[in-house]
Amino acid sequence: MPLTLFQTSIPIFTKYMHNLSALLEKAEADAKTRNYPPEALIEARLAPDMHKLSRQVQIASDMVKNGAARLAGIEPPSFPDTETTLEDLQARIAKTIAFLETITEGQLEGAETREIVLKFPGRQMSFSGAAYLLDFVLPNLFFHVTTAYNILRHNGVAIGKRDFIGA
Amino acid sequence: MPLTLFQTSIPIFTKYMHNLSALLEKAEADAKTRNYPPEALIEARLAPDMHKLSRQVQIASDMVKNGAARLAGIEPPSFPDTETTLEDLQARIAKTIAFLETITEGQLEGAETREIVLKFPGRQMSFSGAAYLLDFVLPNLFFHVTTAYNILRHNGVAIGKRDFIGA
Repeated sequence: MPLTLFQTSIPIFTKYMHNLSALLEKAEADAKTRNYPPEALIEARLAPDMHKLSRQVQIASDMVKNGAARLAGIEPPSFPDTETTLEDLQARIAKTIAFLETITEGQLEGAETREIVLKFPGRQMSFSGAAYLLDFVLPNLFFHVTTAYNILRHNGVAIGKRDFIGA
Repeated sequence: MPLTLFQTSIPIFTKYMHNLSALLEKAEADAKTRNYPPEALIEARLAPDMHKLSRQVQIASDMVKNGAARLAGIEPPSFPDTETTLEDLQARIAKTIAFLETITEGQLEGAETREIVLKFPGRQMSFSGAAYLLDFVLPNLFFHVTTAYNILRHNGVAIGKRDFIGA
């Protein structure tokens, strides 16, 4: 019984959005306990030329909502990157999870071989659905959730690997 | 044509070991250019109670060599954590890749439903092969490779997301 593309995408996408939300909840609690503005965390980054926390969350959200939509062969919803507070970021994650919950196993049938074309300024990338998921969406999702985790951890928020991995 | 468990594990494991090796090569070049001992990077961490760079590499290596062996139903090789230089870490990665290259598609046939039991002090975790790969090995692999990347990036090594994602 091989893996289905659904099993290898949507439940993982949803789980890591929930885990990211739980990490931001711990960030909010930390800001209250240590009495600093949570916006300081939202603006935090690990290097001056890396993205800040809020952008890490936005990109993780984009990865899974675009990933799910393209694999399902539908137009990805547009989520403008306007979040400036932890509450905004939580709403962005909730909106992402709500979209993921609309994707059915049936929509992903045969998605392994669906051609996915990503257009960037000056270049484009073309994948099979399977390669798009395994070589692009999953590594990028984990990259940005881990980097969000590392930004919080570097700033002293009391989180651990189990918060990243989830239940 | 669903995904095979082989396709969803071994080539990804191998690719991210190669990407990690390339990141460490850039670290070594940076130490030469900026004239500091590479051991400073090996000891670097993002928080005082996080693992240092060398341990991130060792855990990433453990994840994939243990993951590949358990999914194949064979005894994982033991790699003692004795690395203290970038050269040692590169040798550890090379040894890991050499082991991954011995795993055949045939050995992973039916691994989706193989029972995998992990024993930790005081608790144990039990998974199907599919859940072990999707919920444990892949997230942990990406977590530790991303954290190694973030440690280097935080210390000013000139790497970018493309070095993480690879060719």
